[in-house]
Amino acid sequence: MGCLLTPEQSERLLVVLVSPRNPLNIGAAARAMANFGFQRLAIVAPFAVNWAEAKSAVGAPDLLRDAQVCETLDEALAPCQLVLGTGSLDKRRPVQAIVTLPEGAARLRQALNTPHPGDPARPTAAILFGSEKHGLTADDLSFCHGLIAIDTAEAQPSMNLGQAVAVCLYEIARNPDAQPPLVPHRGANPTLSSPTGEMPETEQLERLATLVTEVMERVDYTIRGQKASSSESLRILLRRLMPNEADMRRIMGLFRRILWQLARQNEKP
Amino acid sequence: MGCLLTPEQSERLLVVLVSPRNPLNIGAAARAMANFGFQRLAIVAPFAVNWAEAKSAVGAPDLLRDAQVCETLDEALAPCQLVLGTGSLDKRRPVQAIVTLPEGAARLRQALNTPHPGDPARPTAAILFGSEKHGLTADDLSFCHGLIAIDTAEAQPSMNLGQAVAVCLYEIARNPDAQPPLVPHRGANPTLSSPTGEMPETEQLERLATLVTEVMERVDYTIRGQKASSSESLRILLRRLMPNEADMRRIMGLFRRILWQLARQNEKP
Repeated sequence: MGCLLTPEQSERLLVVLVSPRNPLNIGAAARAMANFGFQRLAIVAPFAVNWAEAKSAVGAPDLLRDAQVCETLDEALAPCQLVLGTGSLDKRRPVQAIVTLPEGAARLRQALNTPHPGDPARPTAAILFGSEKHGLTADDLSFCHGLIAIDTAEAQPSMNLGQAVAVCLYEIARNPDAQPPLVPHRGANPTLSSPTGEMPETEQLERLATLVTEVMERVDYTIRGQKASSSESLRILLRRLMPNEADMRRIMGLFRRILWQLARQNEKP
Repeated sequence: MGCLLTPEQSERLLVVLVSPRNPLNIGAAARAMANFGFQRLAIVAPFAVNWAEAKSAVGAPDLLRDAQVCETLDEALAPCQLVLGTGSLDKRRPVQAIVTLPEGAARLRQALNTPHPGDPARPTAAILFGSEKHGLTADDLSFCHGLIAIDTAEAQPSMNLGQAVAVCLYEIARNPDAQPPLVPHRGANPTLSSPTGEMPETEQLERLATLVTEVMERVDYTIRGQKASSSESLRILLRRLMPNEADMRRIMGLFRRILWQLARQNEKP
């Protein structure tokens, strides 16, 4: 919906995977990059076999084939002015600044706003992800200005590599100033209105839909101009209306009454 | 860092996977749930073999074993008052309200604030994820009050299932009102200061570190009380200081001068 960074800004971010092990995770990281418009990937000291497998996987994005493969981290990070690592705090107490993801992402966006002073084709900022086994080491972190600690639950603080990349890039790519379009440009979609009073549960809505359908069948009525099946379009309608529970009682009462009257008519000679 | 939802709020969200195919994706979705503190998972019409494989995988979170398996979507959604689907807009033009992820997440959080009116043990809101192959169908969406469209790049709009779950749950779990702790509670970590002027690149910092190390060796100096190796602690120090390029020139100049003087002394008899 057009809230992502510009291609110029995105090009200035270097995503670095340090010693990744699982080819599926490498592929997932690359896919998340493509999802959020980033192109520049560096892989530091990958396990050779796994890297070859990841790169040749069916459907691997171009950026994976174009990735820079480096022996050492300082080689990958050479042009970068701001370098942030990622990880959880459960097993480490880093000496670097610890920032939340929204805070770190804001700093990275700031660094992506201006081109590299020496060479506009080079990245200005980098975000680092450690290996699946132990994350970034103290030595890896020594190349970082700070550590982004994603706020996770204490019972399961450690994220999957591909998922951590997705969450971080989502947060970096978002435009915090962009107002979410309440009515999108593409069409005449309704807005998600705010409920007034208790909202009905799905099973209550289903009961109402069943009742309405029964009435429609009894009166031999079909909604015109609807491409979808009528039970589907009825469900859609009920949710767009967002009736509250009092509304539901009223509507159900009405339709029960209609059914009762229809049954009574049939009984008459 | 304690910005997640309370356990009571998290318990009120139902995460629904509709016809998931890949056991790895089911496991990844469950792991993301555990990462962000959610427990309640429903799987609708899974492929039986894949579901068995996902559930019995090594390291599968408890919530996966406790997941509710349903034949139909309305069975899973029965108690829910607010139901939002997820997907990209590249292949569909849904008739439901389309919301951005931040907007949809805010609405879901709102629905998680109060317990279910009938039974506090039941969920009040649900978020739906479609199968890897085609996402949510028009019929699935007819159970939804709106569709969360994650803002992705046009060239690669479709996200991996496990990554989409992670990004959505991250956004729902975040507390938009919580101020990111600039100095976390755990220790005396420094804050990530704002740069003044151009920031140096990693390779410039490395040149300086090499120069300083050379001087330290020449004067037989080692940093006391540092557990880490001295080159590592030097890198950390340089990044915490955040010198700008003018600072760098000055510092490099000084250390080059020191080296030159040291060399000159050695030449003297």
